[in-house]
Amino acid sequence: MLFTLVLGGARSGKSAFAQAAAEARAAQTGGRLVMVATAQAFDSEMAERIARHRDDRGSAWTTVEAPLDLAGALDGLGADDVVVIDCLTLWLSNLMLDDRDVLTAAAQLVESVGRFEGALWLVSNEVGLGIVPDNALARRFRDEAGRLHQTLARAADAVTLVMAGLTLRLK
Amino acid sequence: MLFTLVLGGARSGKSAFAQAAAEARAAQTGGRLVMVATAQAFDSEMAERIARHRDDRGSAWTTVEAPLDLAGALDGLGADDVVVIDCLTLWLSNLMLDDRDVLTAAAQLVESVGRFEGALWLVSNEVGLGIVPDNALARRFRDEAGRLHQTLARAADAVTLVMAGLTLRLK
Amino acid sequence: MLFTLVLGGARSGKSAFAQAAAEARAAQTGGRLVMVATAQAFDSEMAERIARHRDDRGSAWTTVEAPLDLAGALDGLGADDVVVIDCLTLWLSNLMLDDRDVLTAAAQLVESVGRFEGALWLVSNEVGLGIVPDNALARRFRDEAGRLHQTLARAADAVTLVMAGLTLRLK
Repeated sequence: MLFTLVLGGARSGKSAFAQAAAEARAAQTGGRLVMVATAQAFDSEMAERIARHRDDRGSAWTTVEAPLDLAGALDGLGADDVVVIDCLTLWLSNLMLDDRDVLTAAAQLVESVGRFEGALWLVSNEVGLGIVPDNALARRFRDEAGRLHQTLARAADAVTLVMAGLTLRLK
Repeated sequence: MLFTLVLGGARSGKSAFAQAAAEARAAQTGGRLVMVATAQAFDSEMAERIARHRDDRGSAWTTVEAPLDLAGALDGLGADDVVVIDCLTLWLSNLMLDDRDVLTAAAQLVESVGRFEGALWLVSNEVGLGIVPDNALARRFRDEAGRLHQTLARAADAVTLVMAGLTLRLK
Repeated sequence: MLFTLVLGGARSGKSAFAQAAAEARAAQTGGRLVMVATAQAFDSEMAERIARHRDDRGSAWTTVEAPLDLAGALDGLGADDVVVIDCLTLWLSNLMLDDRDVLTAAAQLVESVGRFEGALWLVSNEVGLGIVPDNALARRFRDEAGRLHQTLARAADAVTLVMAGLTLRLK
């Protein structure tokens, strides 16, 4: 198992970095490229965006949609799979909108990541470096995201911050 | 004197890092562990949170409350003390709510830090990497925080950025 | 040509870093110091601030104002010029307020930077590390800024992140 946590801001190039790293890995090992997408198509604009992302990745990638049950989706993948989960903050947002217990879901994800035998890049937005939001839900969201990042960073083999398409290794 | 400025986003693990570093230092030197807390209990929720933090730290720590007079609190501590100030952004917020002159208070703090003969970790939120806030007070706050960080970073022996519980040495 | 992209949060010291680097370069090469300012004086407060910045820089600097046509301004400068463009995010904001096509303007800027034969420091605000803004225009702005940073970082000889007045080399 190789687990890399990829953190970055909006449009920092974090997804492109994770995909390129996974593609390089799959080229070496011959493993199957799997994108675990957490986005949900609430409207046609979002549906279009999801379809465009899928087209951009090309036919080498298998897409698994997991807006809520990320642990279950990962449990369904195997040792030969080269996986990108994109992105964790969208998943967290889906959990909160669906009134799920974030702590339990996070613990299940960490366990599933621990069990997973393939190679994994987990992409997440770093959202905690701005002004405290006025909105209570946004404050809770950034607290949950920060805690989740700490937990996952402890479990990760590598943690990379992406900024302006460039990488900074944190672990 | 050893002065470390610890910067990080919300729930980045900056306080835990500062406390662990101070505990390691105190274990070596036998110094007294002092937490200078800037939080103010405006309501019962906040009072509970402050009490919980105090319990979490355990009996090895002495707590000094200094919501406004941080320089005075630090002047009251000695060469054998191993001190964490947590956090600077809350102090800045207290100053602004109380209509104090931030520039004067900041200058007094920097002087006090310069006089202090013990070991000091000063924890602060990095808040300047998001979108410009709509709110004029929030804009002023992040400008003051940025200036304060620059001033303190110049005076510091070490500056560490904490992200996802991991550290990046800036100085 | 030497092109450095300087990223940083609000009041991080990014402008001071770029100016000091340019002044050191000009002292070596004898080149002319040119500040390409993107700020627009919409009101007297802003006009005052622009004038104060100009005074702060001192008489060694020539100031060129380029709120919109940054590529044109850069094309007007030569191989002996030591240039700071400050800042890119304000320019992006000006383009959006003026309903210009950002993609075209960005492509023109990148081409102009490629043609430029002097030394260039381009200063920009990193704005993508906070909570997703409520405001659609702010969301678009941070997306455009992120994409622009990636494009410029690819073209840059060096990319430096400034935090609390300290620098972290990303490229």
